[in-house]
Amino acid sequence: MKRLLSALLLLAGAASAQEGEVTLPSTTVPFSSYASPAARHYFETDLRDVHPNFSGIAEARAYYDKWNAEQAERARQSYAVEIHPEIIGGVQTDVIIPKGGPAPRNKNRVLINLHGGAFAWGARDGGQAESIPVAALGVIEVITVDYREGPENHFPAASEDVAAVYADLLQRYRPENIGIFGCSAGGILTAESVAWFQKHNLPRPGAIAMLCSGAKLFSGDSAFLAPILNGGPPAKPEDVPTKLASIPYFTGADAGDPLVLPGVSDAVMAQFPPTAILTGSRDFAMSAALDTANQLNRLGVEAELHVWDGMSHAFMMLSQLPEAREANYTLARFFDRHLGMKPKG
Amino acid sequence: MKRLLSALLLLAGAASAQEGEVTLPSTTVPFSSYASPAARHYFETDLRDVHPNFSGIAEARAYYDKWNAEQAERARQSYAVEIHPEIIGGVQTDVIIPKGGPAPRNKNRVLINLHGGAFAWGARDGGQAESIPVAALGVIEVITVDYREGPENHFPAASEDVAAVYADLLQRYRPENIGIFGCSAGGILTAESVAWFQKHNLPRPGAIAMLCSGAKLFSGDSAFLAPILNGGPPAKPEDVPTKLASIPYFTGADAGDPLVLPGVSDAVMAQFPPTAILTGSRDFAMSAALDTANQLNRLGVEAELHVWDGMSHAFMMLSQLPEAREANYTLARFFDRHLGMKPKG
Repeated sequence: MKRLLSALLLLAGAASAQEGEVTLPSTTVPFSSYASPAARHYFETDLRDVHPNFSGIAEARAYYDKWNAEQAERARQSYAVEIHPEIIGGVQTDVIIPKGGPAPRNKNRVLINLHGGAFAWGARDGGQAESIPVAALGVIEVITVDYREGPENHFPAASEDVAAVYADLLQRYRPENIGIFGCSAGGILTAESVAWFQKHNLPRPGAIAMLCSGAKLFSGDSAFLAPILNGGPPAKPEDVPTKLASIPYFTGADAGDPLVLPGVSDAVMAQFPPTAILTGSRDFAMSAALDTANQLNRLGVEAELHVWDGMSHAFMMLSQLPEAREANYTLARFFDRHLGMKPKG
Repeated sequence: MKRLLSALLLLAGAASAQEGEVTLPSTTVPFSSYASPAARHYFETDLRDVHPNFSGIAEARAYYDKWNAEQAERARQSYAVEIHPEIIGGVQTDVIIPKGGPAPRNKNRVLINLHGGAFAWGARDGGQAESIPVAALGVIEVITVDYREGPENHFPAASEDVAAVYADLLQRYRPENIGIFGCSAGGILTAESVAWFQKHNLPRPGAIAMLCSGAKLFSGDSAFLAPILNGGPPAKPEDVPTKLASIPYFTGADAGDPLVLPGVSDAVMAQFPPTAILTGSRDFAMSAALDTANQLNRLGVEAELHVWDGMSHAFMMLSQLPEAREANYTLARFFDRHLGMKPKG
């Protein structure tokens, strides 16, 4: 019966094939044998059959605020840090200090985290969930920035806020001692920030990292595979590549502007500092991440890529997963290899 | 109709779900928008609807001999090299010299290529198709080794042949000036060779690369996704991970032996030299490659990963693809950064 249905579907698909298209038959895929039991458990309980449909921004925010609060709470339980809310450059931040303070070699270094959340949610708790593991595993101070989001605010509000925090930190730190990283929307904002600094004559940071994101719109194989691998419905072809207009923060923004999507400009990308790109094989942003890494390498920028099999979008925020711990440790080590150490002169 | 069938298939799948399994609905995936028109053309004409079924080894060899001859011919047309058949350490090789000779900085360096082909085919032409682009783009000498294969020969015949060539080259080159790379079976053999050298007190080479392969059996997400992404039938669950017994060369070999699959031993892998891992998002070996890169990084070995979206197994052999050129150039640059340069004392 199943085989017959598959054959019918294949025929239906073949009739409408565009150049380069392939119609996948229905098939069963086990959870990656390279992934941990904890990751498989998370997939079973929190991912495969959980695909909320939101009626609007308020409902989405309520859902993700709760989700982020859970991840932040688990991170606080898993890692020993102190968290100090602080206004820096006029912008709300949380300063995450590893218990006992930064390691001696990190006294003159700082990391800036730009949280994910579709440029619409994720501040404070989401940023803490991303930053706490890196602060603890890297024994380094991390400042997570509550930048302005949509739909209330629009591009370039977030870039302006990141620049304000960065400019303030430059009074205390050499630029080469500052690292910036972000996950999902925060990874895009990380790339946007580097482009913004170029445009506004701010010095280049020492190193950056894009987690589960790239410097371009989401497209490619993973944009089609990740949704179904995570047990959801297939992506609608008209939604890939992601339309900028689907993100309220980018209302009116130009997808051809390198301040919005730096990947459109080799000239901008060629001036990027060393860049780490981390993703998973079930992350819808994997293909964008891979292509960004290749673009940077092609342009002579030191770019390092790490991909965890079976891992989904933003898995680094799940402190119960050994893969997340490994990814965050890899991230901390990347910054340790690339950031300067000298005190501000 | 299609929607109803999908729903039925989902129900059928749900009834038999194992922990962590997901049943993908039939869905249509366009060719990666990040990939080149040449790659899409290759997919249309030579990949999507081409899935030969071989009655036995003779038929498979005939097919792949023809395929490899075509790739080698295109490589010879695309790149300027001289090819000298030579017996080294008692083993047949082809020595590939870039036209005009190696670059000055490569005078005291050499690369060894271990061709792919399931440990059953790929010698000479296949090895040349893999080596010519690297020799030309890296302006470096590459020696491709016609090691003993199955089903006529069994493990460790290939390792012995590689060791014989390597030992001979050590009379002329410092070990840190020698790089080894291979694609598919050749990537596994590259890892096996490093383990073999450890066991037999041969010095470690300067750097190695595994292309479309890892130091372990093929499993994970890509082992299930790549077959259908390339337009073929789904993988049979009982065939993933790859059974060692399915490869005639490994008849009688032990999958728990690090000389066979080095990935089973952290102690062996921790002594690997700097390693590059290159793969594509439609390569059935991608997941094994990703997991090998993570294992090496975890063990403190310098491992760099490059993944091209939309690319299939052994795409580096297709000289008409810009992605192949980029991958082979990336490979050459990796060796340039890691190999020693001093003359043999």
